[in-house]
Amino acid sequence: MIAPLIWKAGLILLADSRIILGIDPGLAHTGWGVVEQRGARLSCVAYGCVATGADTPLAERLLKVHHQIGAVIERFHPSCVGIETVWFGQNVTAAFATGQARGAALVACAEMGLSVGEYAPNQIKMAVVGEGTADKAQVQYMVRQLLGLPSVPEPDHAADALAAAICYVTHEAKGYA
Amino acid sequence: MIAPLIWKAGLILLADSRIILGIDPGLAHTGWGVVEQRGARLSCVAYGCVATGADTPLAERLLKVHHQIGAVIERFHPSCVGIETVWFGQNVTAAFATGQARGAALVACAEMGLSVGEYAPNQIKMAVVGEGTADKAQVQYMVRQLLGLPSVPEPDHAADALAAAICYVTHEAKGYA
Repeated sequence: MIAPLIWKAGLILLADSRIILGIDPGLAHTGWGVVEQRGARLSCVAYGCVATGADTPLAERLLKVHHQIGAVIERFHPSCVGIETVWFGQNVTAAFATGQARGAALVACAEMGLSVGEYAPNQIKMAVVGEGTADKAQVQYMVRQLLGLPSVPEPDHAADALAAAICYVTHEAKGYA
Repeated sequence: MIAPLIWKAGLILLADSRIILGIDPGLAHTGWGVVEQRGARLSCVAYGCVATGADTPLAERLLKVHHQIGAVIERFHPSCVGIETVWFGQNVTAAFATGQARGAALVACAEMGLSVGEYAPNQIKMAVVGEGTADKAQVQYMVRQLLGLPSVPEPDHAADALAAAICYVTHEAKGYA
């Protein structure tokens, strides 16, 4: 069901560790990333992307997003999730499509009782890069550095999901979450 | 769990009858309506509205929409669902919020294997009133007439949901669904 692109072998959770899920929602591609926090140290557990075909009926695409995110939660047992509040400019069609995928993913999170943190793109950039106007490449570079990954996570949706998970930790530490 | 505002007593399904669900999605109010079709005759089985409070966390609101629509499906066993494709003008925020609720509702429909028909507002007006530019009062009046109800269904969201169910039947008859 789930095909994580990277998965830390022999994951052992210490008493003071916890698992944070990050989601970058989209109807065609929903990125997900799982981060482990031990004290101030973060590491990547797994990441991936749920892809749905444009030729598949809408309800089936949404069901796939819901089931796959639910499967990720069942496999890695995160206690919380960071998710981006996407800005669409004036693109109502994109907002409606992404909103539906986000709803399908959030239902899976709520079913499993996860604490949800929602963040604007500039909040995520600030948390990861320290600069709210950072570009995509800077965010990807810092996700790699902060999580000690051998390369930038791909696809972009997975990297953005990991960034949202990192943002959850940062905001909670500041008392925002 | 479900509190239908009206429910036809002693519902008996004949061999040539079927049940159609209609949904008018929204984050604050998701209307639902259940219509029985026997040949060319339509009648109202039940309708209602799922309301979620603005002070409730988003994921919990979406979970409530998902669960309540799922409960309606389990109770009335529709085989198909008609749902409106809402037009938001330039209101991106409303499109994103409604999209999330629509996603939560459609996941419930897909989980139960319902056939989904999506219709633009003018298609629903055309199906119910025979005029794509009909106003809300005309739609409500015709929903009442077509389903033989003693009064206009309330709230509006429930009436709109019943109209979407009627549209499903009409479109399928024309080979659109």
